[in-house]
Formats: sequence, C-alpha cells, structure tokens
Amino acid sequence: MSPVDNAGGASSAVVLLSGGLDSAVTLAIAHDQGFRCYALSIDYGQRHRAELEAARRVAASLGVAEQKFIRIDLNDIGGSALTDPAIAVPVKPTDGIPPTYVPARNTVLLGLALGWAEVLSAKDIFIGVNAVDYSGYPDCRPAFIEAFTKLAAVATKAGVEGQRFQIHTPLINLSKAQIIATGAKLGVDFSITVSCYQADPDGRACGVCDACRLRAAGFDQAGIADGTRYATPMV
Amino acid sequence: MSPVDNAGGASSAVVLLSGGLDSAVTLAIAHDQGFRCYALSIDYGQRHRAELEAARRVAASLGVAEQKFIRIDLNDIGGSALTDPAIAVPVKPTDGIPPTYVPARNTVLLGLALGWAEVLSAKDIFIGVNAVDYSGYPDCRPAFIEAFTKLAAVATKAGVEGQRFQIHTPLINLSKAQIIATGAKLGVDFSITVSCYQADPDGRACGVCDACRLRAAGFDQAGIADGTRYATPMV
Repeated sequence: MSPVDNAGGASSAVVLLSGGLDSAVTLAIAHDQGFRCYALSIDYGQRHRAELEAARRVAASLGVAEQKFIRIDLNDIGGSALTDPAIAVPVKPTDGIPPTYVPARNTVLLGLALGWAEVLSAKDIFIGVNAVDYSGYPDCRPAFIEAFTKLAAVATKAGVEGQRFQIHTPLINLSKAQIIATGAKLGVDFSITVSCYQADPDGRACGVCDACRLRAAGFDQAGIADGTRYATPMV
Repeated sequence: MSPVDNAGGASSAVVLLSGGLDSAVTLAIAHDQGFRCYALSIDYGQRHRAELEAARRVAASLGVAEQKFIRIDLNDIGGSALTDPAIAVPVKPTDGIPPTYVPARNTVLLGLALGWAEVLSAKDIFIGVNAVDYSGYPDCRPAFIEAFTKLAAVATKAGVEGQRFQIHTPLINLSKAQIIATGAKLGVDFSITVSCYQADPDGRACGVCDACRLRAAGFDQAGIADGTRYATPMV
C-alpha cells in the first residue's frame, strides 16, 4: 500500500540525490514505495561536479515532482579531499576515516532536506547512506540517523506541532552488490550515475578512488554488467 | 582561568555571528572567557542583508582570529518571511511560532559551525539563541541545543575519535534587558549591530517588527540609551 497524506493523495518525500549510484537507487526505492518525490541536490563545491549533471539525468530518468539545487560552499570550510584541491583523493584503501570525509556534511545536507520537508508539509526524508560497503564515514551510521531524527522533532515548527519526521535509509544495511541488484530490479540506468570522487568534466570515472573501487567490486559481486564510463582503461 | 588547548594556547571557538545584538554580545562573552574566536557569518538570503555588514563591523570591533562568510540560499527553500519576499514580516505580535521562523535554520547554521570547528580542531561553538524574550522559535530552545550536542558527537570524525563538542548558549536564559546590560559591561557598541528583520540597505531599523520591538523594550528595561538608528522616527 502506498503512503498517503491527510487528503488521501500520495505522501511527499524529500530525497537527497547526489547523482551517485546509491542515491539513484534510493530515489528508485522511494518512488517504488509510492512516494511523490522531491529531489534535493546540493552543490557543495565537490570536486566531482559531474555528479550534479548526473543528478539532473537521474531525476529526469526516474521522474520527480520537483528537483531543487542548492549551492553551499563547504570548500570555504575545507578539511576534505572532496572540497579542497590541496588534499589528495586517496587511490589506495586507507586506515580509519579517509580524507574524503567532509566535516559535518550529512548534518548540513539533512538539515536542508528537513527545511524543505517542513515547507512541503512532508514528514519523510530519504538518504542513501550505507554502513556496510562504505568508506568509514561517521555520518553514514545508524547512530547518526537516530540522533538526527531526534533533533528533527525538536528543531522544527512542524515537530513542535506533532509532526514526526522519518529519515529513511533503505540502503544502510545492504552491500554494494545488493544495492546494485535492487537498483537493477527497479530499472535504474546505472550508466547515467557518477560515483567517482574525481570524475572528469564528462563524468568519466578515474577507476582508482575508493568510490570507484567499491562500485566496480559491487557490479562484479552482483554479476551485473558494469556500464561505468572510465576516463582511462582499467588495469 | 582561560580555556587552553592541548598545547597550552588559548582554546579556539567558533562563534555564529549574525550582526544582530544577541550574537554580538555572545562574541563579547566568548572573547571575555578567553577563547580565540572564529566568527562564522552565514548569508542565507535573509531580507535583512544589512546584518551581514553589521557582522563585519562587530567582528572588527571586538577582534576575532578569523571571520568566514558562507553563502547558502535558504530562500530556495522558502517558507519564511525572512527569506521569501512573498511572505510579510509581521508588525504586530503573533500567536504561536511567527512567519519569521526559517525552517531548520539553526540546524543548518550549527551544522556549518560544527564542520568548521572540526577543521579547526576546536570543541567549542557559541550561538546566541535565547529562550526568554525570543520569538517562539523551536530551534532556540534548550531541547534543541541538547539534541544537537548529541548529534555532534556521532556526526563527526572528531566525535568518533573522542572529541566532546560543547554548544555554548550564554544568553539562553537571559532577558533582552539582561543581554543588553551584559553587552554594555563588556563594551559592545550596540550602534553597529542590526536586529531589524527588514532593515534598509543602510542598516536603519523599521522599529515595528518583532525584533525591533523586543530590542527597544530591552534597552528601556535595562535603563541603557538605545543608539539604534531608525529609518523613520518611532511613534
């Protein structure tokens, strides 16, 4: 049964859509569950700007009620290989939390999603975080999502008035291979998504960063052909 | 005794500085407590842009280690009289949470402050929220600050590594008159601050919005001369 709003129409949900593989599958899941989807894509000064073009293609491909792009310069804050050109993107696995971690990124992203959800009178927010085949980011864990859910209840006018926001994380316990299999079943066109941390302007992947390695291994394990476009032939 | 960091130097703190009266007093307090202050001023598309010029003047007047301006278009989200020209700023007291509430604003602002604090290896963040003579905003209450503090511990790499972020809210239980008296004692020049929700481009106040009325009453009750510049003579 599809979620319905008070007037009996389809419930609205804000879906954070980066243009990567995970968020594309997340949007497909929200769509499949019957939500009227509002895609929120944040231009936070990331290196992989080809992701934003991918976000536009994914939203068009899967269908959304509206897509919003918000620009915010997290590179003004720095501290991450994704926003600061002086910090290299690692091409080999690293111990601990890698330099591609963006300080407080998901706090800010979910804060923006929460604000838009409140304006839309929506209570549902989808984010494609993953705690299995992920890169060790603290703000991709269930503990973070639980803490943000509690915050949302007290941070907003809607929360004070009784709205119980729900942060949906349909991928949180899936392996990359399971995410890919789920997306394939829902008809996601992976070739239009960009996961690479340093994709070229045409959206072609480097093949060696964390994100590329996780993605390639996922297709391999899922036994699904990997349509990723690489800038240089894979070794 | 002043707070010290691991190397025995003054501890760093990020101070959210809007350019209004409350945040100016908050910066003065952090400074007075011995923190090395990093002022964070957010241009979120607010109507009262004269506030940002005020933020620059206040930081220069009180002295900061660095001031950062980050632009983020919360008016893309809308839903507030402060960011959407189509929603009027009320000129009389309203029941409940007023239309000047900006959805999830302090969640996003504290998220950015948290990110910068992490980059600076700072554990202290100051925000001039007030739960007494305030306008009924949910994200100015102790419950919100407590929830955000819990979030900060799990949202960040520093938190995972044992850093305990502290959100300082030195004004939270003070009346507007007490805030003004505290600021006066610490040498804050109130004439360079702008509280008005719809100040003119020169920073002159309207005198009739919530923020203007609270501010004027505060000076009156504190028995301190109000140097606020008004666009039109007060009735």
